[in-house]
Amino acid sequence: MIIVMKPGASQLAINHVVERIESMNLKSHVIVGTERTVIAAIGDERGKVKEELETADGVDRVLPILAPYKMASRELRERTIVRARDFECGNSKIGVIAGPCSVEGEEQILAIARGVKAAGATALRGGAWKPRTSPYSFQGLKQEGLKMLAAARDATGLAVVTEVMAPEHVPVVAEYADVLQIGARNMQNYLLLQACGETRKPVLLKRGPAATMEEFLLAAEYILDRGNQQVMLCERGIRTFEEHTRFTLPLATVPFLHEKTHLPIVVDPSHGTGKAALVSTMSRAAVAAGADGLILEVHPSPENAWSDGYQTITIEAFGKLMAECRRVAEAIDRTI
Amino acid sequence: MIIVMKPGASQLAINHVVERIESMNLKSHVIVGTERTVIAAIGDERGKVKEELETADGVDRVLPILAPYKMASRELRERTIVRARDFECGNSKIGVIAGPCSVEGEEQILAIARGVKAAGATALRGGAWKPRTSPYSFQGLKQEGLKMLAAARDATGLAVVTEVMAPEHVPVVAEYADVLQIGARNMQNYLLLQACGETRKPVLLKRGPAATMEEFLLAAEYILDRGNQQVMLCERGIRTFEEHTRFTLPLATVPFLHEKTHLPIVVDPSHGTGKAALVSTMSRAAVAAGADGLILEVHPSPENAWSDGYQTITIEAFGKLMAECRRVAEAIDRTI
Amino acid sequence: MIIVMKPGASQLAINHVVERIESMNLKSHVIVGTERTVIAAIGDERGKVKEELETADGVDRVLPILAPYKMASRELRERTIVRARDFECGNSKIGVIAGPCSVEGEEQILAIARGVKAAGATALRGGAWKPRTSPYSFQGLKQEGLKMLAAARDATGLAVVTEVMAPEHVPVVAEYADVLQIGARNMQNYLLLQACGETRKPVLLKRGPAATMEEFLLAAEYILDRGNQQVMLCERGIRTFEEHTRFTLPLATVPFLHEKTHLPIVVDPSHGTGKAALVSTMSRAAVAAGADGLILEVHPSPENAWSDGYQTITIEAFGKLMAECRRVAEAIDRTI
Amino acid sequence: MIIVMKPGASQLAINHVVERIESMNLKSHVIVGTERTVIAAIGDERGKVKEELETADGVDRVLPILAPYKMASRELRERTIVRARDFECGNSKIGVIAGPCSVEGEEQILAIARGVKAAGATALRGGAWKPRTSPYSFQGLKQEGLKMLAAARDATGLAVVTEVMAPEHVPVVAEYADVLQIGARNMQNYLLLQACGETRKPVLLKRGPAATMEEFLLAAEYILDRGNQQVMLCERGIRTFEEHTRFTLPLATVPFLHEKTHLPIVVDPSHGTGKAALVSTMSRAAVAAGADGLILEVHPSPENAWSDGYQTITIEAFGKLMAECRRVAEAIDRTI
Repeated sequence: MIIVMKPGASQLAINHVVERIESMNLKSHVIVGTERTVIAAIGDERGKVKEELETADGVDRVLPILAPYKMASRELRERTIVRARDFECGNSKIGVIAGPCSVEGEEQILAIARGVKAAGATALRGGAWKPRTSPYSFQGLKQEGLKMLAAARDATGLAVVTEVMAPEHVPVVAEYADVLQIGARNMQNYLLLQACGETRKPVLLKRGPAATMEEFLLAAEYILDRGNQQVMLCERGIRTFEEHTRFTLPLATVPFLHEKTHLPIVVDPSHGTGKAALVSTMSRAAVAAGADGLILEVHPSPENAWSDGYQTITIEAFGKLMAECRRVAEAIDRTI
Repeated sequence: MIIVMKPGASQLAINHVVERIESMNLKSHVIVGTERTVIAAIGDERGKVKEELETADGVDRVLPILAPYKMASRELRERTIVRARDFECGNSKIGVIAGPCSVEGEEQILAIARGVKAAGATALRGGAWKPRTSPYSFQGLKQEGLKMLAAARDATGLAVVTEVMAPEHVPVVAEYADVLQIGARNMQNYLLLQACGETRKPVLLKRGPAATMEEFLLAAEYILDRGNQQVMLCERGIRTFEEHTRFTLPLATVPFLHEKTHLPIVVDPSHGTGKAALVSTMSRAAVAAGADGLILEVHPSPENAWSDGYQTITIEAFGKLMAECRRVAEAIDRTI
Repeated sequence: MIIVMKPGASQLAINHVVERIESMNLKSHVIVGTERTVIAAIGDERGKVKEELETADGVDRVLPILAPYKMASRELRERTIVRARDFECGNSKIGVIAGPCSVEGEEQILAIARGVKAAGATALRGGAWKPRTSPYSFQGLKQEGLKMLAAARDATGLAVVTEVMAPEHVPVVAEYADVLQIGARNMQNYLLLQACGETRKPVLLKRGPAATMEEFLLAAEYILDRGNQQVMLCERGIRTFEEHTRFTLPLATVPFLHEKTHLPIVVDPSHGTGKAALVSTMSRAAVAAGADGLILEVHPSPENAWSDGYQTITIEAFGKLMAECRRVAEAIDRTI
Repeated sequence: MIIVMKPGASQLAINHVVERIESMNLKSHVIVGTERTVIAAIGDERGKVKEELETADGVDRVLPILAPYKMASRELRERTIVRARDFECGNSKIGVIAGPCSVEGEEQILAIARGVKAAGATALRGGAWKPRTSPYSFQGLKQEGLKMLAAARDATGLAVVTEVMAPEHVPVVAEYADVLQIGARNMQNYLLLQACGETRKPVLLKRGPAATMEEFLLAAEYILDRGNQQVMLCERGIRTFEEHTRFTLPLATVPFLHEKTHLPIVVDPSHGTGKAALVSTMSRAAVAAGADGLILEVHPSPENAWSDGYQTITIEAFGKLMAECRRVAEAIDRTI
């Protein structure tokens, strides 16, 4: 940690910072520059140390040197491979999760499961509890939806990925699902992160639309810290000034996170664009960017979907998308 | 709702949209322009109607006409005044909530309560459960903290405002607190919104740092919809490209929301700037912008605060801030 | 254009809007809804019409129906192919522009030109006038730099792409360069756009870091409107809250613009990420997203480059990048 | 400057960085931490030094310590007061610039000048060259407009503030205007900044909608560096995800810049909100935030204005706004 003093900070202020640093069991090192004095604090700086020094008299700002997360850091570990039934994510095979935004009925989910499996998906998505912006929108079939997902899994062998919205729902969702999804709106719902961390189910953690990489990795850290190592990070688009797409999908997230963490990275081109017409091209681009997985909204008739139709593709379009992505995957020596 | 067809959309596609509109119990009205056909759908368009039409063949886009929220709308009601003990918000007197980021101990909270009350605050803030970005940061004194807040209230008469982080905590927090605060990270935690909506305690709902005005008002709608009318909206800064402040504090939120909703608007200059040196000036600006309340982080020694010290002001600075805000309030015919 | 009246707008206000619409030679069409009246204005709505109606009494907002640009619109034309010597952009072959941020000397530019040509580039970039954030940074070799670029072209046959910063420089830059580049900071320098529009040199127009798609296409419209049809649009990253990359590179721009315009789309992964380590992966992703061209910063020794070294790759890395992109291009039936 | 090495950087890499630092006439200081080595470089770090070190082998990142601007820095000077006729900006009196978006004719500008002067403005704004997003919008009366502005000045004594769009227009604009305005789109048009820096006319420099504080101050530095010290900085709103206002107006810019620079700060609530209904409230808030000046769009009939009508207020509303701002100014011991 580097503490930058204000121009003209007094010797008293400098001494005070040095004392604070040493009281935190860090070593201090004062460097007197031509215009400013800076003080280096050496040792494990994680925790609340930074904030304490920032408010000390004469301090201009504090620059952290170490990443605030540990367990998510790539330095510590081999790449993590997440597995759920035949679904794999993090090795050379790209895992594909496909299905409707919402579970609408047993026949619907079964038909979709069969369709996406035939095209090469290894996991089935489908919302049972739906976090909706408006209280007047469809809120999901809840436990009935979970049962339908489980039936579709039994029929097809696809791993079931579904969202869990609250800590108290974790047990019931974990009973039916193979992968617990934490939605973008809940990326910093720390009690939920901890509850998922207590299970041994794989977790798909979606990036909040305004979350930085540090916040995203610290959210993962909450799960890892409870002993659950099966975490996938999902880029689903961020909120920017752009208005021609629902969100802005920043694919540089993929190679950047591959440098920083051992966890696999999944991309969601459906939410990331919010436009069915862009999903296929952006899926190819995500594969080329090195994504370890894709999650896609697929429905036999998007016009009749109970939610998210505008960003949902047909089963037919999904088949075509998979064929295209397969070629791109091969071009970078991976499979899908 | 206005449905804009693509250039060259077929008569078949137009007819199909008309049928869909009418099957939703709306009236349709086809307008053939020089380059495009547009179709007006007349009636109550709220719900999932928009999404359904957006995906229909030949449709370019759908433009909603009505606001998606109802109960929060100003059209429906007189201005809401929120009351908790002597704290009032929404009338000519500006309500001031002040206190530490975290409750750290009984003496600490009592000393602060006395200090801020003497300077004119009518409510006391203080976190018992703390949502923290890092799992390695202090997470709050939890129920012990609630008891300390209640003791400080008993000693001073200040209303207690404290954050509730999960639906299952609502009963215990409601037992001790006068106002339930929903944090920015939980603005779209719908189960929590509903749980707070089931109580009859006033709610302080913070804007998510990437939430639009519509999303913010729809979050309030979740609470109102459960029968709790005592809702305050709190602007606490948004995430933008700016890096010299922790968040960007968009004060135009205040007059804009005053046009759209009957709910009172509180401003949080502490989180909104993230810098103690800017808090006082931005409090004055918030009052001039018409804020109905202020919420401020105050601590006897920010350097020793267990959290958020960099944006916390001293009790002395708070006294000075109140004196300055009082003059600005008078200049716009209000009191504080 | 759809004019949405405020709730309770008077008949007088409605009549006034109708009169204004008709005085603009548009047809009006009044639709009385359950909560609001909306008025459709039919005809060519481009120009200042929208603003005039927006301020009329009783008007809530005005929703445009037609895109504000005409000549850039895909509806009007076949895809444009831009050509300069062997460089082509807009057909199945992806055009690659490579070279240093700044021209530093005759030998430097010649060595780079030979290196990038050997790896498959068909155009050479290099700044002679450099727009720099700080007045204390290197500002370019100016006309001397142009001569060095021309010499490198003569030696290699590569087309020369270089930035023009002001209308009065257009003649001299056009004398030496094959393609005029308009930088991101100048995307809305309308006098410069017009001056480039008066030439018959191809133009590479970079997107401003806060420009919407409409603003970008309207900037192109300024050039097209003066009779120059050889325009390439370049996505080079936008400014968002993200801080781990210098800009956020939104690749969905590529398929989105392909839907809207006949102009070819170039991607700049060097500026788009600001990190050399991410350039190669994002180049592959750009190709997979359908980019018609790439522009890349290449230097024999990025550490010794006079500008932008942190986002510049070596000639060797460029060779490897081209080999990787070639495979991805083939996977989508294109060449590079 | 602090150079943070990657974990496990070799001694060779560390030595290389030390050599580079010393070759730049800076002193180096190596600090070996528990997980990382950091190297302090002591001395005047401005210029291209940072970029060079960032690309050296083994370097993770470079943290600058000193601000990159010098002449704009508050440390160096007393507060600057800008003066043009009776207009003053930077002392206890708040300078008010008011007038139409575009000069439309001699009578129009004269009537407005008289109206705003009567209400207390000391300067007149009005565009002669108009940078417009669309080539199909009104582009200004150009030199004729300048003459009309000068005539209005002669009749009223108001200082004339008008935009200059290109370096070659500087002489003619400087002939008629009292203050040269550099528009937001041209904030980084460095040749224009330098040309204005060569004059001795006061300059009103608008913040680009995606510019950071450093970029803004460095743009001012381009003007100051040429010897023109009469520079005002104008906050006119930034581009964010917010869509209910045209831009987001971040008033914390005012106290923040007051800490960093001696230059006066003007706020533009017209562009900053893009909505006439919000202009008056945000003007009051700007005054409370400590703005040294206001610039406002005023027109006798906004509905008939040739540009920007939706954010323009009437002369009557301007009079009311001034009365309100006067009271707020007094509450913070200033006048207007």
